[in-house]
Amino acid sequence: MFDFAEWIKSIQNSVETVAQKELPVSGTGSQLEEAMRYSVLGGGKRVRPLLVFASGTLTEAKKRDLDLVSLAVECVHCYSLVHDDLPCMDNDVLRHGKPTTHAQFGEAMAMLAGDALQPEAFKLILKTGVKAEQKNKLIEILARASSVDGMCGGQAIDLSVVGQKMTMTELEKMHRMKTGALLLGSVLMGAWTGKIELISNGLLKSLTAYGRAIGLAFQIVDDILDVTADSKTLGKTAGKDALEDKPTYVSLLGLDKAKELAHKQLSLALGALSDVPESQGKELLENLARMIVRRGY
Amino acid sequence: MFDFAEWIKSIQNSVETVAQKELPVSGTGSQLEEAMRYSVLGGGKRVRPLLVFASGTLTEAKKRDLDLVSLAVECVHCYSLVHDDLPCMDNDVLRHGKPTTHAQFGEAMAMLAGDALQPEAFKLILKTGVKAEQKNKLIEILARASSVDGMCGGQAIDLSVVGQKMTMTELEKMHRMKTGALLLGSVLMGAWTGKIELISNGLLKSLTAYGRAIGLAFQIVDDILDVTADSKTLGKTAGKDALEDKPTYVSLLGLDKAKELAHKQLSLALGALSDVPESQGKELLENLARMIVRRGY
Repeated sequence: MFDFAEWIKSIQNSVETVAQKELPVSGTGSQLEEAMRYSVLGGGKRVRPLLVFASGTLTEAKKRDLDLVSLAVECVHCYSLVHDDLPCMDNDVLRHGKPTTHAQFGEAMAMLAGDALQPEAFKLILKTGVKAEQKNKLIEILARASSVDGMCGGQAIDLSVVGQKMTMTELEKMHRMKTGALLLGSVLMGAWTGKIELISNGLLKSLTAYGRAIGLAFQIVDDILDVTADSKTLGKTAGKDALEDKPTYVSLLGLDKAKELAHKQLSLALGALSDVPESQGKELLENLARMIVRRGY
Repeated sequence: MFDFAEWIKSIQNSVETVAQKELPVSGTGSQLEEAMRYSVLGGGKRVRPLLVFASGTLTEAKKRDLDLVSLAVECVHCYSLVHDDLPCMDNDVLRHGKPTTHAQFGEAMAMLAGDALQPEAFKLILKTGVKAEQKNKLIEILARASSVDGMCGGQAIDLSVVGQKMTMTELEKMHRMKTGALLLGSVLMGAWTGKIELISNGLLKSLTAYGRAIGLAFQIVDDILDVTADSKTLGKTAGKDALEDKPTYVSLLGLDKAKELAHKQLSLALGALSDVPESQGKELLENLARMIVRRGY
């Protein structure tokens, strides 16, 4: 019988092994490579790689290609964490239970490590064995998800709203960009890594709806955990949102309604997959959606 | 008769027009797009776009494609300036004769503007009409040139050597990565934007040697100008290298020997083009090499 928990562990281990092998090793005589590796290795739930692998299973993508694509997404995710933790942003010293990159290497080197992880991500995609058009598509999805239309744009809104009132619509827009875009991107990139004849418009439509729903669910649960979990469980400083007077789903809706909304997104995600034929890939996506919503409480 | 000065001006104007049109316009409600545009528009000699256009002329690249590719390179160049100017790096408040991005928008927004210009660059390349394989090649060159093996790597070495003694070999390595890689990348990207049947291995070899030589020449002249020019002429703070006790070509060799070395690189650059048939593209590259070495003195 298929063991989901084992599968999660195997992907998490695989990300670590591939990152160890594929990330640049020291050559410049500076600490840059070390800071880049420190930023990516040894931490995190690897949610984005899990999504890449799950949807890549639907299109029969090769393991090696999924390894490279999921590390690419993780490089972008980790660069955003490194920059987010800097003193001029969130000024955080704890991440995945260890000192943040700037706490370990200094601000300037941390900024450069984040900067250098971006081109590394695109280089990793180019290393895959997929068709030239698919590489173009993978790069397009990753670039858009991390751009002003996605992650960076959401981050900028986040900066500008501290201490301000936000409507639910504004909060949702911010989170769809800040966290949702790269999660959706991961789902789509997994599919685009596979066999081109299996990537139908219907499938992409289903995966887009699924990715949007789990992207939002992820952030709602993050907001919930910031209130309900302690720093040790989170591996990062808990209770920061309220402390910094940031608008969150919990501050806008209260804890119960926020949980309700997370479960509504789970239903949407599962419903989005209804047209996808029963298969291991579909089951993985369903299980991941449940895991994202139910983690930690 | 062909007027080189007019050509320079027309490309510089074209970069400005294309940037105005292609860079994201405000949509998020934050200042991010504004900060991105501020960082790219209205300044600089546009040396990298000039190189893209000159070598693109050799392979009969389309104007529209060269516009997009040269703006992509300029996005990467400008992001590096924005991050370089931040307080945790060079802490500079003047660039192209106007306040630096963080002086204008704050540190956090400046960091994000730099971050968001990177994916924008790759999106611009994907907008060109060249073949899928060429897009991948252009992305590969740009990613490599700006990575830990290029610009970011050189920047990290730069950070680590303030106040230290450097040999000429170490200084050259640092500059080849920090400034040279993206200048060489610009030359190669111009060629790769053109007709695939005109991109021969011989041409790429000539352009690589040319790009390496002008890349180094550019930095030597930069070091010279930091000593000989004033802030108004440079549009940035002059005399900073000596103030910060940074190793430079002038501090290692003295002014005269540094000028000699710059001229040696010019000879190398011109010599590298000897196998390239006489043409407008070749003439442009020759003139650009002379301009790079002779600017400002």
